[in-house]
Amino acid sequence: MRVVLLAGGVGGSKLADGLAQLVGANLTVIVNTGDDLELHGLAIWPDHDTVAYTLADLDDEIRGWGLRGESWTVMDRLEELGELSWFRLGDRDLATHLWRSDRLRAGSRPTDVALELQRAMGIDARILPMADVPVRTEVLTADGWLEFQEYFVHRHQEPAVHEVRLRGIESASATPESIAALDAAEVVVIAPSNPIVSIAPILAVPGIRAGIAGLRERDVPVVAVSGIIGGRALKGPADRMLASLGRESSAVGVAREYGDVADAFVLDTVDGATAPTIEALGMRTLVTDTVMVDDVARVRLAGEVLEFATGARSG
Amino acid sequence: MRVVLLAGGVGGSKLADGLAQLVGANLTVIVNTGDDLELHGLAIWPDHDTVAYTLADLDDEIRGWGLRGESWTVMDRLEELGELSWFRLGDRDLATHLWRSDRLRAGSRPTDVALELQRAMGIDARILPMADVPVRTEVLTADGWLEFQEYFVHRHQEPAVHEVRLRGIESASATPESIAALDAAEVVVIAPSNPIVSIAPILAVPGIRAGIAGLRERDVPVVAVSGIIGGRALKGPADRMLASLGRESSAVGVAREYGDVADAFVLDTVDGATAPTIEALGMRTLVTDTVMVDDVARVRLAGEVLEFATGARSG
Repeated sequence: MRVVLLAGGVGGSKLADGLAQLVGANLTVIVNTGDDLELHGLAIWPDHDTVAYTLADLDDEIRGWGLRGESWTVMDRLEELGELSWFRLGDRDLATHLWRSDRLRAGSRPTDVALELQRAMGIDARILPMADVPVRTEVLTADGWLEFQEYFVHRHQEPAVHEVRLRGIESASATPESIAALDAAEVVVIAPSNPIVSIAPILAVPGIRAGIAGLRERDVPVVAVSGIIGGRALKGPADRMLASLGRESSAVGVAREYGDVADAFVLDTVDGATAPTIEALGMRTLVTDTVMVDDVARVRLAGEVLEFATGARSG
Repeated sequence: MRVVLLAGGVGGSKLADGLAQLVGANLTVIVNTGDDLELHGLAIWPDHDTVAYTLADLDDEIRGWGLRGESWTVMDRLEELGELSWFRLGDRDLATHLWRSDRLRAGSRPTDVALELQRAMGIDARILPMADVPVRTEVLTADGWLEFQEYFVHRHQEPAVHEVRLRGIESASATPESIAALDAAEVVVIAPSNPIVSIAPILAVPGIRAGIAGLRERDVPVVAVSGIIGGRALKGPADRMLASLGRESSAVGVAREYGDVADAFVLDTVDGATAPTIEALGMRTLVTDTVMVDDVARVRLAGEVLEFATGARSG
């Protein structure tokens, strides 16, 4: 089954891993690039790399980000030289950024660089940047507009977010690879990532939403998985962000974000009572355990999502 | 006493260290940049960094290059990603290259970046790149023209060198800082570095040789130290290079390279018998132990060189 997954970082990478174990090279992940940044002259792609490290089985599951067995020698030395380092890059991680930045500076297209890197890491699935031009997510706080990583890492997601904008989005467009993957998809899955700053940027890239709309006309199922469970995000600021943006921090609130995109919705057992409200939005629902506590849970949820999504259409 | 030292890497750094212990901030090193290279998108300055690490007391004296306590995590990971790495960069060393490359890409002048880096490393002396535009030393071998590090590191200095050229030298010029340092110098020392590929590139930068000639008109002493002892280079290919270029691999051969630049010459005790031949070239000579086996020997040789050079003029 050819699956396209729209994903951000950690939550997205776990479902990506479950799906990859089921469909292997038939999985294409379109990944958020709004969190990307330049640091020490290097191109840092946090969401891409989180998904890539997870699919390559190199991720540090205990820390929840970065590479297993990481060391911090280069950053420590940069700090000795007086360099600001609130965004710390591990030594093994730095190899990824050096590898990538060198090729980007030589003029290679981000999508080509991403695919070459994934091959070098032995990944069967494909992880496509949502766009080949820079899009930068910025959030409006009481301190003004902040770049995403300034808000996310440096300020520990503490300031309330009152507005989100995507700098460069008007110059972006869906890549030929993304359009082709969507066109060939038998199911599209929206990962339990942050709907505001992980999934919305992908959907905002001109061509992506139209590509998904075209699929729905052909009765290809589009299923979203809630990243909000019992009103809380398992990880990250999605719950506080939904609230401070005047929306509802709940599975229903997430479903509303995807009302015009998805036709099926997966929510956690603890939110089961709200399934009728979501169905009233025009989506079929699956209520199940959505917390991917281990590898078995990743594969189980991935299997249930695929079965539900495709069954939802046929039934 | 204000001292200007012309220097390459290892041999130059030891004498620089001895001089720095005697005159501190009154030492200016004009360093060869012909060995510099770009690797993984980073600006690598081997001779500058060897001198800087030595003056900051961070150098690995046992290995003879790079930083003490170095690790190789980033390179190991780049190799896992399939990246060619015959020029291996240590993790702590990489911090230097990242720090520098970021500033150079932002448009800063190499001399300014060098001086800022030295301040960050707590170095009192100044190490000036010989030029602010790239000059690249290339050597002609039986396999054609090779970039310097290709010959030096990748091919282990094995091919015979039949000719040397300095790509970009016609666009180079002495920096304001180098001209000012020469103008204020009370003595100029030419380090026991490779005369062909470490010192000659510095002297070839338009403005350097004229600056030194101006000093000699004012009776400021210019003293060269032989890096060839008993016909052999202590380190590196200078002896084989002199021979394959049809010159003499001896203290006399080195003295001939500096005949129109220096007025005083320091050679090792083992070559003492050749002092009259060197004096016949118009240079006064000092015969002494020039092998800097330890810190004491560095300071002793530096002191003898300064005393001889200045005494040579007054006496």
